[in-house]
Amino acid sequence: MKYGYFDDAKKEYVITTPATPYPWINYLGSQEFFSLISNTGGGYSFYKDAKLRRITRYRYNNVPLDLGGGRYYYLYDNGEFWSPGYSPAKKELDAYECRHGMGYTKITGKRNDIETEITFFVPLNYNGEVHKVVVTNSGKKPKEVKLFSFLEWCLWNAQDDQANFQRNFNTGEVEIKGSVIYHKTEYKERRDHYAFFSVNAPIDGYDSDRESFLGTYNGFDNPQAVAAGKSNNSVADGWSPIASHSLLLTLEPGESRELVFILGYVENSLEEKWESKNVINKQKAEAMIAKFATADAVDKALEELSNYWEELLSKYNLASGDDKLNRMVNIWNQYQCMVTFNLSRSASYFESGIGRGMGFRDSNQDLLGFLHQIPDRARERIIDLASTQLEDGGAYHQYQPLTKRGNDEIGGNFNDDPLWLVLAVVAYIKETGDYSILDVMTPYDNDTSKAAPLSDHIKRAFDHVINNLGPHGLPLIGRADWNDCLNLNCFSMEPGESFQTTTSKDGRVAESVMIAGMFVYIGKEYTALMEKVGNTAEADRATMEVRKMKDVIMEHGFDGEWFLRAYDDFGRKVGSNECEEGKIFIESQGFCVMGGCGIEDGKAIKALDAVEERLGTKYGLVLNNPAFTKYYVEYGEISTYPAGYKENAGIFCHNNAWIMCAEAVMGRGDKAFDYYTRIAPAYTEEYSEIHRMEPYVYSQMVAGKDAKRFGEAKNSWLTGTASWNFVAISQFILGIKPDYDGLKVDPSIPRDWEGYQVTRSFRGDTYKITVKNPNHVSAGIASLTVDGKVVEGNIIPVALDGKLHEVEVILG
Amino acid sequence: MKYGYFDDAKKEYVITTPATPYPWINYLGSQEFFSLISNTGGGYSFYKDAKLRRITRYRYNNVPLDLGGGRYYYLYDNGEFWSPGYSPAKKELDAYECRHGMGYTKITGKRNDIETEITFFVPLNYNGEVHKVVVTNSGKKPKEVKLFSFLEWCLWNAQDDQANFQRNFNTGEVEIKGSVIYHKTEYKERRDHYAFFSVNAPIDGYDSDRESFLGTYNGFDNPQAVAAGKSNNSVADGWSPIASHSLLLTLEPGESRELVFILGYVENSLEEKWESKNVINKQKAEAMIAKFATADAVDKALEELSNYWEELLSKYNLASGDDKLNRMVNIWNQYQCMVTFNLSRSASYFESGIGRGMGFRDSNQDLLGFLHQIPDRARERIIDLASTQLEDGGAYHQYQPLTKRGNDEIGGNFNDDPLWLVLAVVAYIKETGDYSILDVMTPYDNDTSKAAPLSDHIKRAFDHVINNLGPHGLPLIGRADWNDCLNLNCFSMEPGESFQTTTSKDGRVAESVMIAGMFVYIGKEYTALMEKVGNTAEADRATMEVRKMKDVIMEHGFDGEWFLRAYDDFGRKVGSNECEEGKIFIESQGFCVMGGCGIEDGKAIKALDAVEERLGTKYGLVLNNPAFTKYYVEYGEISTYPAGYKENAGIFCHNNAWIMCAEAVMGRGDKAFDYYTRIAPAYTEEYSEIHRMEPYVYSQMVAGKDAKRFGEAKNSWLTGTASWNFVAISQFILGIKPDYDGLKVDPSIPRDWEGYQVTRSFRGDTYKITVKNPNHVSAGIASLTVDGKVVEGNIIPVALDGKLHEVEVILG
Repeated sequence: MKYGYFDDAKKEYVITTPATPYPWINYLGSQEFFSLISNTGGGYSFYKDAKLRRITRYRYNNVPLDLGGGRYYYLYDNGEFWSPGYSPAKKELDAYECRHGMGYTKITGKRNDIETEITFFVPLNYNGEVHKVVVTNSGKKPKEVKLFSFLEWCLWNAQDDQANFQRNFNTGEVEIKGSVIYHKTEYKERRDHYAFFSVNAPIDGYDSDRESFLGTYNGFDNPQAVAAGKSNNSVADGWSPIASHSLLLTLEPGESRELVFILGYVENSLEEKWESKNVINKQKAEAMIAKFATADAVDKALEELSNYWEELLSKYNLASGDDKLNRMVNIWNQYQCMVTFNLSRSASYFESGIGRGMGFRDSNQDLLGFLHQIPDRARERIIDLASTQLEDGGAYHQYQPLTKRGNDEIGGNFNDDPLWLVLAVVAYIKETGDYSILDVMTPYDNDTSKAAPLSDHIKRAFDHVINNLGPHGLPLIGRADWNDCLNLNCFSMEPGESFQTTTSKDGRVAESVMIAGMFVYIGKEYTALMEKVGNTAEADRATMEVRKMKDVIMEHGFDGEWFLRAYDDFGRKVGSNECEEGKIFIESQGFCVMGGCGIEDGKAIKALDAVEERLGTKYGLVLNNPAFTKYYVEYGEISTYPAGYKENAGIFCHNNAWIMCAEAVMGRGDKAFDYYTRIAPAYTEEYSEIHRMEPYVYSQMVAGKDAKRFGEAKNSWLTGTASWNFVAISQFILGIKPDYDGLKVDPSIPRDWEGYQVTRSFRGDTYKITVKNPNHVSAGIASLTVDGKVVEGNIIPVALDGKLHEVEVILG
Repeated sequence: MKYGYFDDAKKEYVITTPATPYPWINYLGSQEFFSLISNTGGGYSFYKDAKLRRITRYRYNNVPLDLGGGRYYYLYDNGEFWSPGYSPAKKELDAYECRHGMGYTKITGKRNDIETEITFFVPLNYNGEVHKVVVTNSGKKPKEVKLFSFLEWCLWNAQDDQANFQRNFNTGEVEIKGSVIYHKTEYKERRDHYAFFSVNAPIDGYDSDRESFLGTYNGFDNPQAVAAGKSNNSVADGWSPIASHSLLLTLEPGESRELVFILGYVENSLEEKWESKNVINKQKAEAMIAKFATADAVDKALEELSNYWEELLSKYNLASGDDKLNRMVNIWNQYQCMVTFNLSRSASYFESGIGRGMGFRDSNQDLLGFLHQIPDRARERIIDLASTQLEDGGAYHQYQPLTKRGNDEIGGNFNDDPLWLVLAVVAYIKETGDYSILDVMTPYDNDTSKAAPLSDHIKRAFDHVINNLGPHGLPLIGRADWNDCLNLNCFSMEPGESFQTTTSKDGRVAESVMIAGMFVYIGKEYTALMEKVGNTAEADRATMEVRKMKDVIMEHGFDGEWFLRAYDDFGRKVGSNECEEGKIFIESQGFCVMGGCGIEDGKAIKALDAVEERLGTKYGLVLNNPAFTKYYVEYGEISTYPAGYKENAGIFCHNNAWIMCAEAVMGRGDKAFDYYTRIAPAYTEEYSEIHRMEPYVYSQMVAGKDAKRFGEAKNSWLTGTASWNFVAISQFILGIKPDYDGLKVDPSIPRDWEGYQVTRSFRGDTYKITVKNPNHVSAGIASLTVDGKVVEGNIIPVALDGKLHEVEVILG
């Protein structure tokens, strides 16, 4: 069952009912000001950091669902009222539509012959959310309606905001000037920032105190001010400051009224904080408001945003016979990659924004799907990440985006972390050809006195693995590897203790075959880079280490039919046929095969076949099998989940991509693409009532075959799935791979495909690559011509002429 | 305006409307299982620790207010439904009443000729909340109605529960057996506890999955199961587990049906966790349920609870001509003292239960108003508190009740903390005569290898002050003294940084006159105790130190008309006429005068007169004046509050009691009692629409004269106000003071009083003390007779015969 449809021409998903199976959201903003917005206007905004600079309040796990805060509008018409987005008033509408587009959301609702269309977006280079509201009298009689706006301020620190009421109920302060409501809680003291909510028209009234607006016991569905059709002009003084305007609109039949509301964020330095005693300096806010004084100015900014996305998405464009595939590759997967690049795992409808900052491994992986869009931002991020790396090559697991410093509370010792940095650096250089990044002096542990060239960072990352080997010569797992929940050194028996932060033993026994596979795969990339920059000695050393690791994997990491997952702290096999539960895991199969282990002797194929047989389901591949049905103190968090959920045999979409890549490496394009379609959101749209999450973006997890809710997704948006699936489809399946000297063409597709066309911007040039498959093969190139000239091998040499180049590829 | 009335005979406050100005709550439980319950059934339960063992979910700062969780009931009658407590259904009732009593709450609601009475309580020695539900057909026709119960489980750790959704939405698990719904999330792994919700009758259906019960987007006001009159028999699997029963009740006219619902908590050791694989061992739960299988058993437990409170409250009973005074002294103030003893500042409608544990200084002070009730529990608490003391005599500022360990996150260095321990120990011995507590081997920092007799702890507490003196010889303030918000060593400029936990400089300049006053007051008590136990050398040493401190106060701590508050880090005066704002503070006036400073030379009276003139308002005494109107980095948090709120010139009721005591010490009973009535809750009942908080308990703060909301209270229930006001009224004003060798009688009352009678249990005896005031004086005793015999002095010698003794006191 569907709850809307894709409008590919407009790059929108159009939701046709407010009653989606779960709130279906979008993100606004892509630089410093971010917002989450659901299909009924729920959500919140923050500046840079969802924990430390939360601008508006949102209640997670609210009852009613999603009615915990948002940018709310109400229309009051002659004694009755409704909301154009259905929520919060929840009065039936004659028409409803929500269009989630690239960086904007447009909600339209109609009732009583009044059509209201609201476009929400964050303009480029702007620290604010703009709402263009168009109210139209679509009836035959003149109308006099009142429009009420509403939002609730968060007292900046989102965690403290929901805990420290004995203080917080006393601190709220606002200022009101004209049509602008300023939120200035704690500005009097140490804060250098305030927020505002404005409208570009004179108002009839306002409220800034929540209780005055709602009534003591009313909900957002029934504010007493709206029910009465009249604001109270309340001035908040403690408790919960809000911002609500009311405007009387007189509309002739057919007449429209356009209004611009702005939710803005302003920082003032200490010297420029005040206009006069306790009166805030409003200069910057007024400039922001002036910028969008008219609906025309807003339309122009919307057009700029549209052009911005047109340009970004033009860098990789697919024309295939499959609409679902086209919309994933051309629109939604790339769009989601931008969101994961911006936010890592910090703020979604499942990530509360107060739990954590930017992940080291997460952000490095997110770069893989993003860096072709804006390489400069990728470069900056790489340096930010590397700056939190520790001197021994290890890494803080997370950092706060506001401070860009490593997060002490979480700590480090996740032994896969450093390798992802190597992969990100390699991918950046392959995309850009910019080797100079290797020379950037980059601090360790954010200490500039400990700066070293980035090349030193990736060397230490590589060495961190070989400096931490266990009894079999496999890499020690540390607190955990990519699978945060496989905690082989924790041995926690304390109820509720966090596996991620509690003291873990400095285990020198438990080893990860997954890190070993990563080391081989990424180590080869490191080797190639070293060769490329002429550091042959380092390349030779690395080659030797990689070869050694590969041998160790084949000797100690293969279980007969598939790759082991690990050795535990007792030196016992994890992910082995010998185990009672958790006999096979997905991660090591993916990375070992991607690294080329077992290709020669058929073990790679064996492992992939075992994946299909034991982990395959119609909704994707489960992480492990059989699921754990009891707690294993020696395995940790993975065995705390009910069977079929999350890391315990859930369909963890992130690692599904590694199997796609591995199948592609083996040339099994049919299987690779089959796995792709099992989890790609556009393909899940048909059964949204089961899947429940947004059909335009990936979710982290889908309940596995052992779960009662098999097929139900969770944790949409912020997942490494987006990036890795883009890598899998664009580079491994469609086979257009950036390489040092050009674009490598190496498809691995379903045999029955006739062909497809990819238009790829690369280092300033554009390559229109037509792939033809007359012989119905999966892989292998029969011929490659560039601008009519035959090229040997499978690399399109980079032209660097800024021009369009026609490429024809014949498979066979 | 009033929203109810006191029913003194039943020791209840009767609320007659659900629309109180704020939810008016009660506490259930007084040992290990606690609940908060509002007048419409909102609130939550926990076992020992509101953060780590939260049993049911409650959403603070919810919209609609208080509709964020509770124990909810719905009646379904032929297509329509309502809640007997008004919430959550919010349908109009024909009758409504809520009776908050001693450890129980009874809510009655009537509609459609159905009267429903629900009594909520936690039986003595029982880890569960019992709901006795009586449904009566008060109409003339037979009725067939359905009763729905509802509560929502918290996933144990209340902080994690509202943050870690990416995990928590996957972990929820329940079991259902008969009429019992068991909540067992994480029991599979490390938890040794589960909860259950039962009813003592066969059920027609159940729900344990929130979404199934409510519908995806519905609120608690409109659950789809209730609207349909039918449960879905849903079994939770992740997301939000709940517990709801439905029962069909067929009632003839006049017929009643009694049901018993139980919300229980069970712990099982590792060995006894399971009945069979993944099936929890229910033995303990079944025993708990069996205990209250009948309404009769419940009634008996209610009677036991009533007897328990009758006994507790009999220990200090006043008969005066003032009903408000009687109900405060005899019922509500003592009741609140029990609550503050149990919970410190951990869980109220303002304390979210996740911010902190038990305060060191808070709990020591709370003991003062509690220890006459159950001295054994006071003794245990004193040892718990002293066990977290540090070796240098300082203290952790807070500890977690579940672990009883000092809270590292908050730390220490609040330099008044140690002195409160001395005061608590002295009060305990005076109440009980039990000197053996001084010999109890008590750890430092919870390290049993560092145990020492409690007498050593109080010595180190005393010495901690004199080992930390500043340039004037006054005590260094450390991070802060009693006024947490006067942070003279923080110098914080970082937005949002916590003044309580951020690194504070090890200031050796800023001094506290308040601690100096405390040292004199409490030091004298320490001296007397040392004399009492025959440690003359220590007594002499302490006397000398106290005398020295008193001299220092008079030389450096008096500002001409009142006592200074402190010296800041620059050595400048705080709370001086020289200051621009904050010229006078309340705390040092109270403690210096209580300590006897300035009594001889009239400075004490001068200071108290200044308090009246500068701090007095009709709603109580403000903390300081003038309020701070800007941020003073050298003063810290106090200047972050808007003027008139909290520590910045709010009426901080806690310290109002110190002025009452000081006025009593000076024999000015009229003023002492006047201040008492300005803040005592029963006297605020008349203007509840301004005061807004419960008129039966103290609030921490009332907005001061500089505030826009002058007279509005906040932070009700958990405040040191309860304990100190009980000390002020019972010991300083009514003047019945426990002393080492008997009860001291030393009233300080309004001159126009004719007299009063106090019945006091003391060390097993009962003293019926009749105070007569024929000469209309405030203080001074003309004669004292015990059982007809004249006693010299003002101490009733302790009889230790377990009998009733008649005491007559003539003032004059």
